[in-house]
Amino acid sequence: MKLLEERIRKDGLVKEGNVLKVDSFLNHQMDIELFNEMGKEWKRLFSNVEINKILTIEASGIAIAAVAAQYFDAKVVFAKKSKSVNLDGSVYQAKVQSFTHGNVSDVIVSKKFLGPEDKVLIIDDFLARGCALEGLIKIVHESGATLQGIGIAIEKGFQEGGKKIRNMGVRLESLAIIESMDAASGEIVFGK
Amino acid sequence: MKLLEERIRKDGLVKEGNVLKVDSFLNHQMDIELFNEMGKEWKRLFSNVEINKILTIEASGIAIAAVAAQYFDAKVVFAKKSKSVNLDGSVYQAKVQSFTHGNVSDVIVSKKFLGPEDKVLIIDDFLARGCALEGLIKIVHESGATLQGIGIAIEKGFQEGGKKIRNMGVRLESLAIIESMDAASGEIVFGK
Repeated sequence: MKLLEERIRKDGLVKEGNVLKVDSFLNHQMDIELFNEMGKEWKRLFSNVEINKILTIEASGIAIAAVAAQYFDAKVVFAKKSKSVNLDGSVYQAKVQSFTHGNVSDVIVSKKFLGPEDKVLIIDDFLARGCALEGLIKIVHESGATLQGIGIAIEKGFQEGGKKIRNMGVRLESLAIIESMDAASGEIVFGK
Repeated sequence: MKLLEERIRKDGLVKEGNVLKVDSFLNHQMDIELFNEMGKEWKRLFSNVEINKILTIEASGIAIAAVAAQYFDAKVVFAKKSKSVNLDGSVYQAKVQSFTHGNVSDVIVSKKFLGPEDKVLIIDDFLARGCALEGLIKIVHESGATLQGIGIAIEKGFQEGGKKIRNMGVRLESLAIIESMDAASGEIVFGK
């Protein structure tokens, strides 16, 4: 998606350790107009499949999923990263390692909000090693829902997550795929 | 706001310990159409003030703020609950006690995304004791930004948060104010 690639080039910052900072428009300060364009693009890409539920994970996937949901006739469910006292005991659960924070979280979704009747699109901001997605996919499978596809804003194409997910036979649509990036020069090369 | 009150009556569950579960439409599964109506209502209520930034806090405020932002010409910034390695050292910080989780978090906002030029509307899902709001207000004041008001989805009117915030002279617009609720009967009484 040209608009997102241009925005990453303009406002993204490449840091040492394969870190791409997009916190001025994607995951701390958020440009909701851009999210609307991303939502339209996912709708175009997934126009031929039925989707009634969008699943994401806190925190930075939530706004993107919520805005994108407006282009589908879908409710949004976000997986929570720790057990809240407000949740019933009846949850789907997966362990997820965070690339950014370097820790392992329990990720949970209430069984009330995901079941065999659901046609699910997973949406998240980043795909790197794919740990968060693997957790969400496990939860979708456990619930008996149908996974219709995954929409990612930025995929780090030089890490293994995208390949892993596509090899599972899951349809994955990343709006920007970074083939390589260089912290010294700031250069970003997009793929596909 | 009638629509929200009716929805709380229909789908909200009153639990022991002053807990109101609205996780089927507000803070786990999310009804984005409802959030759009809430956004319109806040726009109506704050139509006479300039707002260029909406500040919220992860996780359950994010979707509401993102959808509401579409009715303002505003970017959204969400305060993060723990220090991410992806953030620069340069942050505003506040300590916030969580009613739901019973712990204290460091809440941070990058200094890049809040400053004296900003006219801020704070949006969050719940107001009970007001701890999260106090943290966000402290951050807005520290940044030199102008706090134009606060929009809350559900205020627990029988707890002290609303009074505390209004006594600070901050304009607070809660879309539903619960005067009392009873876990045994499930009855909810709305105020104002």
